[in-house]
Parts: sequence; structure tokens; C-alpha cells
Amino acid sequence: MLSVEEALQKILNEANVLEAESVPILESLGQVLAEDIKSDINVPPLDNSAMDGYAVRSQDTKGASEKTPRFLQVIDIVLAGSISRQEVVPGTTVRIMTGAPIPRGADSVVQFEDTDEQKNKNTPAEKITRVGILSEARPGLNIRLAGEDIARGTIALKKGIVVRSAEIGLMASLGYSRVKVIRRPIVAVLSTGNELVEVSQSLPEGKIYDSNAYSIASLVKRYGGIPKLLGIARDDEAELVSKLKQAQDADMLLTTGGVSMGDYDMVKDILARDGEMLFWQVRVKPGKPLAFGKIKGKDKNGKSKSIPHLGLPGNAASCMVSFELFVRPALLKMMGKKNLTKPTVEVIMEDSIKNDAGRRIYDRAIIEKRDGHYYARLTGPQGSGILTSMSLANGLVLIPEEITKVNKGDTVQALMLDWNEEVNL
Amino acid sequence: MLSVEEALQKILNEANVLEAESVPILESLGQVLAEDIKSDINVPPLDNSAMDGYAVRSQDTKGASEKTPRFLQVIDIVLAGSISRQEVVPGTTVRIMTGAPIPRGADSVVQFEDTDEQKNKNTPAEKITRVGILSEARPGLNIRLAGEDIARGTIALKKGIVVRSAEIGLMASLGYSRVKVIRRPIVAVLSTGNELVEVSQSLPEGKIYDSNAYSIASLVKRYGGIPKLLGIARDDEAELVSKLKQAQDADMLLTTGGVSMGDYDMVKDILARDGEMLFWQVRVKPGKPLAFGKIKGKDKNGKSKSIPHLGLPGNAASCMVSFELFVRPALLKMMGKKNLTKPTVEVIMEDSIKNDAGRRIYDRAIIEKRDGHYYARLTGPQGSGILTSMSLANGLVLIPEEITKVNKGDTVQALMLDWNEEVNL
Repeated sequence: MLSVEEALQKILNEANVLEAESVPILESLGQVLAEDIKSDINVPPLDNSAMDGYAVRSQDTKGASEKTPRFLQVIDIVLAGSISRQEVVPGTTVRIMTGAPIPRGADSVVQFEDTDEQKNKNTPAEKITRVGILSEARPGLNIRLAGEDIARGTIALKKGIVVRSAEIGLMASLGYSRVKVIRRPIVAVLSTGNELVEVSQSLPEGKIYDSNAYSIASLVKRYGGIPKLLGIARDDEAELVSKLKQAQDADMLLTTGGVSMGDYDMVKDILARDGEMLFWQVRVKPGKPLAFGKIKGKDKNGKSKSIPHLGLPGNAASCMVSFELFVRPALLKMMGKKNLTKPTVEVIMEDSIKNDAGRRIYDRAIIEKRDGHYYARLTGPQGSGILTSMSLANGLVLIPEEITKVNKGDTVQALMLDWNEEVNL
Repeated sequence: MLSVEEALQKILNEANVLEAESVPILESLGQVLAEDIKSDINVPPLDNSAMDGYAVRSQDTKGASEKTPRFLQVIDIVLAGSISRQEVVPGTTVRIMTGAPIPRGADSVVQFEDTDEQKNKNTPAEKITRVGILSEARPGLNIRLAGEDIARGTIALKKGIVVRSAEIGLMASLGYSRVKVIRRPIVAVLSTGNELVEVSQSLPEGKIYDSNAYSIASLVKRYGGIPKLLGIARDDEAELVSKLKQAQDADMLLTTGGVSMGDYDMVKDILARDGEMLFWQVRVKPGKPLAFGKIKGKDKNGKSKSIPHLGLPGNAASCMVSFELFVRPALLKMMGKKNLTKPTVEVIMEDSIKNDAGRRIYDRAIIEKRDGHYYARLTGPQGSGILTSMSLANGLVLIPEEITKVNKGDTVQALMLDWNEEVNL
């Protein structure tokens, strides 16, 4: 049976980075740049003022102090977005607003707080003719240089990085309205099993509602993919084959159920027959029955392609844990992301865990930080069908294959499902 | 001048939790439940099998071992979604698949691996008439009890929690197709300043592209709000007033620029005149010029309401930092969330920082974990207009107001903008 790492490697080998698409910059949030963002301009475009104040020749302020103001003649006012036609010659100054280009002749800006501006409080700005400078200005004071942030001709953002809000702002500041990013994967989601009923239906005896389609589709959304819900296929070969046809234009197929040892677990059989099955069990708990293979599909030009297919276990909690361990990294890789691992922390166990299966255990836990340490307690019964165990959890504690018992107080690794900003604790 | 905490408190006082809306469960991801989710059913609905195997009377397996199999007559097959009509009487068994209801008479399930099933490998399941049990089964073995996960009549999810994938799965398992959640806030975003040009235009000398609208709108999206872009208003009273009218149906208004001490910083004047201004400066760097007030608006029934208005600084980096510190918590509160703080970590500084302004500093930093410690280095020049400083950063190091210098090697708190799964490092 494959280890978690071996299984993941086989899956990642088949998960190829998708093509680029051009989108408005605001829609690119969370996607990966498929082009270098080059700057055709200087940012800022001209030397400009970092403060509201007076543009001066620094030598004119020599010796200026509260007690010995240096008085200058105000020859113009310049606002952000305007350019002054005046030159600052000895003994003169231009009143300047934040962001406005520095007038010729000036080499520094004295902010209002360092002038006698206060006494002009009731004078309209355009009528101020004289200002007292109350402190010495060194050359360059309060001046933002042209190209200081981004110089013309440089690469401001490199292909391959993830677009966050700062990158969107940066692209806008360079005049980009659209950008090329790796497109989001379309993920077909199919539930299998005669026992399943759609949430909108009434529930006959012996049946259960299909929850996996929803937990899985929402995980696809959360991690940046586009879910395509195919509904429920009964354990019937014809129905299953027909539903699988609807996945042909997807980038990945996720099925739930039908991958155990049972005679009616048809997914893995059809996969073995019509597609290619690469493995169907992993040394992990929960989540041992995990089938992985490829089915035949078509790209948008009608060319045949092969679509990675993960057959997730039917049990609700197993299904979600398998998604986090195996589907999430594959999706991220397809989106061009480099960092495929969930954050992990060291936790001190507040419960003991037995491992008699010889598999890697991922138990659902509530992880809390107290006094600088993380502590983990289990969310109650860990049965692989118990969805409340996932709902209560914000992390998964990891017990290695070769460890048969973890005691209260032992330190183990935990994979964080949610950081504290998202958690219900 | 207000401290960060005082300013935030004033803002939160005006940010009210929005009304509930009913959405399909898959769309509720990240929103807050506005109703208790009660269960009308048992989950699972009936006692059922946790394994593929044979449903037996445990007393029939007494003494069973590899060497001394106990042979039972196979009287039926039951699949998930079906119910067996047979009763398991002494000496008999029903072949059972995972999830299938336990037949009357049986009190445990022996998994295939603990039977002589292997020898029937080539026999069609329906022709198997006898099976050898190879290990003793205790009562309840491999049986999931009805209501074990969620008992009929209990509250499975409480009003007020944040919906994640597990909660969506859980709601589906109870048959919910829609759910009531607090609706997402609509946030109007308006940039002000004569110097600003829309990204799609060409750039005249002395002008700059409006980047704030995009960084801010994408932050609104990231934290769960719906941005409504109002474009650019020149520093012209009539234009500004007319643009503000377009924000009337929003839940929050964000303007950028126009809040400094400059004479042409009109936002705070109009706010003071037409709305209510609660403060306009905060003891923080970057982000000192932050205006907060309320403008008049209308709800969807035409009733007048007051809309919180944050006037963010025009400098690109200040604007984003102010958003993280003041807008994000307000948005989250409006969405009904309880945890309004970004995660913080203790970091060891790899750069020194001077604080001569007597304000709280939030410097942009790259925070990395090495050998179990977090280290922070600055992203280069920290000018408040330098957007690349935000693009390079994954966190903000916090220097308290009263600390005048932080040296290399000192430990400080850092606010994490992005956890490692999202970062470009």
C-alpha cells in the first residue's frame, strides 16, 4: 500500500499547470501571474512632495528655527495632478500639496507643521504671500523621487507569483487593466451510491442525504477551483459511465464512494477498464480507500486529453480529509502555485491516541494557542463517517505509521485546516 | 489624537451586523449562520455497517480464529441504500456493504479481511452460500449507531458560527438545501484627487494611475464584502457630492485621499458638513490621516439610514495598512463574525527601526519561520506611497508608540497579512 507521500507524488505527476487566461485585474485575486508585469512608466512619474507644505531651496532655510524664522515669498500653489510653471529662485517658495510635482529650483519640502502656516489660518491659500520657515531642511527632505517605487523598464512583478491585493494595486499603478493569469480548474464532482438522496428530496427509509458533493464542491471553491456538480450516480454501470461522460470537459474529476472492497464499488472497476488506474489504496486513516487514475476527456478544441480522477472514500469525514491531503495540492499545482502544503504547527496532545492500524493517522482536533504553545484535543469519536468531527475541528493531528500510541502531553505535528481568523472557536 | 484602539472602537460602534439572507448552502461558504441548524433526522438514520463484511450474531463467532473458523449460512446480501428483509438467526449471516442498515438479529459486522471471503473470489456474490468467520466479534463491532453523529431533534450547528466546508456538508447531510446567513456588505469605493487617472486611460504628465480603488476593492472581496466601484472624483465639491450620492445604497463607503491637512482635501470638509465626522486623525504610521464619519443613505425600502464612511489616506501603502487595521474588523463585524483580529506572531527583528513620531508604527516586513522562530526583515524603504513595500510583505511589524528604537535581535509583535499557504516567498 502506498504511503501518503508516494500517493501524493503520483497524483502531482498527473496534475499539470493549466493555460493562461486574460482577466480584469480585480478578478485575478488569488491566481498566479502567467506574465511578467513590466513597467512602462516611473512610479512616481515625477519627483513629488510626500507632505503638504512649502517647496524650498534648502540653502534658504539655513539657520531657520522657531526663534529665527526664515521668511520666503510665496510665488505659486501646486496641487497633486498639476505642474507649477514657476521656478523657485532664492528667497521664494511654492506652496505644495502631497503628491504634487516639485517645482524647478526647489530641492526639499518643509511641512506645514514646521512653518508659521498657523497664522495664515484665516487667509485664503491663494492670498498667502509670505511664509516663515521654522526649521532647517536638508536637500531631499519630504521629496519622493521619480521611479523611487518602480523605475521605468523594470519588471515590477514576476511571472509565477500569487496575486494578492498589493499586486492588484501595483498593476493598477502601472496602468494595467487586465492581466494574464493561470486559469482556475473546473472540477467535476460526482457522488456514487444507491443510498444517496439529493438534499432537496424527501428521505426514504434506509437512505441518506448526499453531503459529500457539497463539502467537496465547497472545498474546490475555497481553494480556487470551479466546481461542476454532476449529481448522484447509482451503483449501475450504465449510469456511472453516462455521468462520467459529463466530466469530459473538466480539468479534474472527483467521485465519492465506490472505491472500497465491496462488490458494488464500481468506480474503481470502471476506472480500471475505461481509464487508467494508478492506485486505489493509501496507508492512511481515515482515507485508505482512495482510487487515483485518469479518464479520457476532450479540451475545448475537441482534442483528446486525459483527466486526473480521484475516487474519494464515501465516508463523510474520510472524504474531506482525503481532499485536504490529496486533492488540494493537485488543484494548487494546476493553478500554478508553488507552495502546496498546509501550514503545520507543533501541538501538545491533551488526549491519547492509539494507532493499531499501522497507517498514518490524521485525527480531527481543536487546536488552541495558550501561553505560547499550541494544544490539541480530539473532537470526540473519530469514526470516518462522523461529519461533526470535521465541523468541530480546526486542524488534523498527525500520528506517524510507526507510532503505536501517543500519550497525553506528547508533542506531535498538526496540519492546520483553518487559521484563527476563520475559526469558530 | 486617537490611538489605534480608540479609533477602532469608534468605528466598530457604528458597524452594525447586517440582516440575514437565504442562500443555497454551497454559496454560504465564509458567511455566518443566522439560524440554528436543527436536525429532523438521525444521522446516520439507522444502525449500519462501517465495513464491507458479514452481519452476524456475535455469539455465533465465539472461539472463531484462523485455525478454528466458525461457518455460517449466507441468507441475503444487503447494500447501502437497501434494507434486508431477512432476520439473522443462529447459524446464519447476511453479506453487508458499508453503509447498509444492519439486518434484524445481527449485532456486529465481521469485515471481509476476517473471513475466508478470499476463497470465494471467483464466485458471484449472490451465489456465496457459506462463509467462514476467522475472528471473534464483540457486540457492536463495526456498527455505526443511528443518531451517533447527530441525533434527531438536536441543534447540529449554532447560529453565529462561520460556515466552512464541513458545515456545508453537515447541512447537506440533514437535507438543508438553503440556509439563512448574514448577508455580505456592499462597500462603495471612491478615489479622490485631480492627479488620478483610470487604469484604462493614457497618462498625462504629472498624473498617476488610480491604484487605491483596486487594492481596496480587492481587499473588500478578500474579506467577504462586495465592492461597488464609484470611480474617481476630482477635488471639486459638486463632483464629490454627486459621487457620494451613488454610495447611498451601500453598507459602507470607503474614500481614498482628501483627508490630509491640505486645503484641497475636501472629503473631510464635506463629511463634516453633510454627514457627521467622528474623527480624522489616528496616532499611527503609516495612516495618520484617517477620517471616520457617517453619511446619509437609504436602505432598499427607501428608509433613511446612516452609512459608516472611512476616508482612507491617499498614499498607496498607508491606504492598504489603514484598511487592514480599521476597515477589515468593521466589515467582519457587519458580517456577524466574532473574531475580528488578524493572527499575530512574535518575531525577532533582523532590521532596526527608529520611531521618532510618537505614533504606533506598522512597518511592512517579510516574516519567515526558521528553527521554530519567526524572523522579520523590512521590505526596504517604508515611504507611505511605496506600494512595492506591501507587495513584498507578508506581515506588519508593530512598534508601540512609546518605543523610540527597536534594534536588530529585539522581539516584537507582527500582524500576519498572509499565512504561508498564500504567500509568494
